Amino acid sequence: MAIDFRRKSVLASITSQVIDTYSSDAASITHLGQEPLPSLEVCLSILSDLKEILFPGYRRRQNLSLVNAPYYVGDLIDSLHDRLADQFARAFRYQSQAGRTVGQEPVPADFAALGQDHAIRFLSALPHLRRLLATDAQAAYDGDPAASGIDEIVFCYPGFEAVTVHRLAHQLYGQKVPLVPRIFSEWAHSQTGIDIHPGASIGPSFFIDHGTGVVIGETCEIAAHVKIYQGVTLGALSFDKDADGNLVRGTKRHPTIEDHVAIYANATVLGGRTVVGAYSVIGASASVTRSVPRNTVVTIEKPLLRFREAA
Amino acid sequence: MAIDFRRKSVLASITSQVIDTYSSDAASITHLGQEPLPSLEVCLSILSDLKEILFPGYRRRQNLSLVNAPYYVGDLIDSLHDRLADQFARAFRYQSQAGRTVGQEPVPADFAALGQDHAIRFLSALPHLRRLLATDAQAAYDGDPAASGIDEIVFCYPGFEAVTVHRLAHQLYGQKVPLVPRIFSEWAHSQTGIDIHPGASIGPSFFIDHGTGVVIGETCEIAAHVKIYQGVTLGALSFDKDADGNLVRGTKRHPTIEDHVAIYANATVLGGRTVVGAYSVIGASASVTRSVPRNTVVTIEKPLLRFREAA
Amino acid sequence: MAIDFRRKSVLASITSQVIDTYSSDAASITHLGQEPLPSLEVCLSILSDLKEILFPGYRRRQNLSLVNAPYYVGDLIDSLHDRLADQFARAFRYQSQAGRTVGQEPVPADFAALGQDHAIRFLSALPHLRRLLATDAQAAYDGDPAASGIDEIVFCYPGFEAVTVHRLAHQLYGQKVPLVPRIFSEWAHSQTGIDIHPGASIGPSFFIDHGTGVVIGETCEIAAHVKIYQGVTLGALSFDKDADGNLVRGTKRHPTIEDHVAIYANATVLGGRTVVGAYSVIGASASVTRSVPRNTVVTIEKPLLRFREAA
Repeated sequence: MAIDFRRKSVLASITSQVIDTYSSDAASITHLGQEPLPSLEVCLSILSDLKEILFPGYRRRQNLSLVNAPYYVGDLIDSLHDRLADQFARAFRYQSQAGRTVGQEPVPADFAALGQDHAIRFLSALPHLRRLLATDAQAAYDGDPAASGIDEIVFCYPGFEAVTVHRLAHQLYGQKVPLVPRIFSEWAHSQTGIDIHPGASIGPSFFIDHGTGVVIGETCEIAAHVKIYQGVTLGALSFDKDADGNLVRGTKRHPTIEDHVAIYANATVLGGRTVVGAYSVIGASASVTRSVPRNTVVTIEKPLLRFREAA
Repeated sequence: MAIDFRRKSVLASITSQVIDTYSSDAASITHLGQEPLPSLEVCLSILSDLKEILFPGYRRRQNLSLVNAPYYVGDLIDSLHDRLADQFARAFRYQSQAGRTVGQEPVPADFAALGQDHAIRFLSALPHLRRLLATDAQAAYDGDPAASGIDEIVFCYPGFEAVTVHRLAHQLYGQKVPLVPRIFSEWAHSQTGIDIHPGASIGPSFFIDHGTGVVIGETCEIAAHVKIYQGVTLGALSFDKDADGNLVRGTKRHPTIEDHVAIYANATVLGGRTVVGAYSVIGASASVTRSVPRNTVVTIEKPLLRFREAA
Repeated sequence: MAIDFRRKSVLASITSQVIDTYSSDAASITHLGQEPLPSLEVCLSILSDLKEILFPGYRRRQNLSLVNAPYYVGDLIDSLHDRLADQFARAFRYQSQAGRTVGQEPVPADFAALGQDHAIRFLSALPHLRRLLATDAQAAYDGDPAASGIDEIVFCYPGFEAVTVHRLAHQLYGQKVPLVPRIFSEWAHSQTGIDIHPGASIGPSFFIDHGTGVVIGETCEIAAHVKIYQGVTLGALSFDKDADGNLVRGTKRHPTIEDHVAIYANATVLGGRTVVGAYSVIGASASVTRSVPRNTVVTIEKPLLRFREAA
């Protein structure tokens, strides 16, 4: 009734069979003998610390005041600088090794210095990001009758969480830091069900309510005071392929949403040339694939419902 | 090839710029110099302990029997009492400070005693909640041909997890404890993709299958033996605004679902005056915005499908 | 202003009322005085270790090379063997106690040996699973213009995470190990919003993009080079009941998808006899309930959109 240790001798053979796949037919999904990638664990600790700075007094450290916050925040920023510099250095070194420099600036050899440059540039953006996030929290309060106050939104609204992480990830995307922005955004996706590509450009006072199932593509441009609901996709209409049949990467594939637009649950807006004009409303479940003028309400002709008595 | 420590002198200036936003243009998203909010971390430890009591022998502590369970459960309840009393006291103190007492009973000054009152009242509800949850587990087994047994449902069905947390959060919502119910429900939302506002009233034998994308609004009333599938929204049709253009909070905005109703995937039922009568069925993707009589099957006229040969 | 300890005397009575529900009206949701179930915590540690082996160098342990990987992997496999054998033994013992052997082979009494058999069989499948996963990672790269490379996919694509866990869970499902496969798949569901039943059979080069809201039922059969998007349901049309009105379990209830099919966002394909032929495309939001010939594009006649000026 216990494990038979003699049978464990087979494990040596299983181990070698696994190891064989590392250098042969499944070598593409290994990362061996190369410089280390950014660490998921460290990236998540960075995200947690960033939220301590962005929303002081709400999360881990309580009892903060304007008297002690400078020490706490100063210490966090100091520690974040070192971790960010290291993770960014890894990301740039990875990109360089992976030969992923086609069409990009040549990457200098001093990855540590490059990582530090980007860490300082990123940390310098935090005051600006905090001002943007204050507009997002207000937009959530103004848009949701179930909200009891701004604190509740900062504390536990998933849409606000997703937008917070997006604004951080988008800053890094703008700095062309590899891998880390996507690690941030996929973490938020797993927490909230809201999938915003770090490349999406989003103006102030943005509110996502409920949010599960939202997809916002890489080349979306969203202006100010936009509100979207659960299940909304701002996506691509089709993908271009080059002469060899490979996908063309980097073109504008996703829509532009102007100021004060509202997009209701499960609607889809597709295509890189599609513009939804300011003050327009896209009704629930509508599917929009061409531009909508400003100040327009788009709703679907509801499919006829059939009513019959249950058997 | 290492961090240049001299460059870190810029961090002091970044820190002051961040701190400046705490008292000026982004002050709304700070919580400084005030009594502490409830702690997310403690609230999640409370939720974990509550599930140990509600489902003995399944999760953290195994090898429980009727002989040792009283010690284990008694100890958990003792410890929960203290943590709940503290978290509830923080929540009421917060609400009082935030001036959020308009239209509510005046809040007494002894928040510790108030927290303890509510902790005892909440713990006293656990036997009742366990009886409700036993009906939910049975409903899941009766409704899902892929279920191998009740234990599997308790162990790992996300719909059952969401309903469990909802029943706890709804009890607290009924007690008018601020913030904590929403912390509970948003945690379940992040785990399951199922977004049930703590205010929603849900009868026994409730089953949500798959569940990702489900949204159930604050003022929903759901009777017994109701079954819903992934992507279903029970939501609001529009929001009322007052004379100043602000949202009116607290009115009935979400539908009423009577006994034995089934609502299939991605259907939406909207509006505070919408009632779906007993034994009715709402078909997949249907969008219902007015009442449905009892014993009625509502399906959409499927949009015509176009078939063409691929290029 | 502090807790009144005298009031805690009521907790004894609450404890007995809770304990009373363990043996009476809510006894179905207890697991007392029985052999222990598999442990969620241990199962998740197993999943984490399996990903270390499947994707060496990406996650916890970095700086691996072909020189040191054999030690690391050999040690993980040794340790996994013991934990897997124990968890599987618990799962089979549970199934035996729960009397869930109707229509299944008689279960031998030596659960430890049975657990070990299945642990070795499962670990032996890892090289094969790695080869399959290499095809899935390539399919993701070929299908997503936003992907910067295969490493990014392995590192943080939720669709790839869900497929990874599914391939492990499906192996266990094939071995008829109880409970553990569902624990694995529901964990992936909670992380990704993608709900794939362990029973679903999925060929190589499978890609799920975005993924939130995807549901793939137990008896689906999916061939090679299939691509699906967020919100897609491959589900059941209705459930058969036996003469006593109980659900019939174990029949083919979910569709068959042939090679090179693409199914776009929020489409549903339902029914056990529904076959989508090779090279066909199911357009976004289409609802398919009967078979589609090969090489066919199915799109919905878009519901008419109504445009009006906003008030």
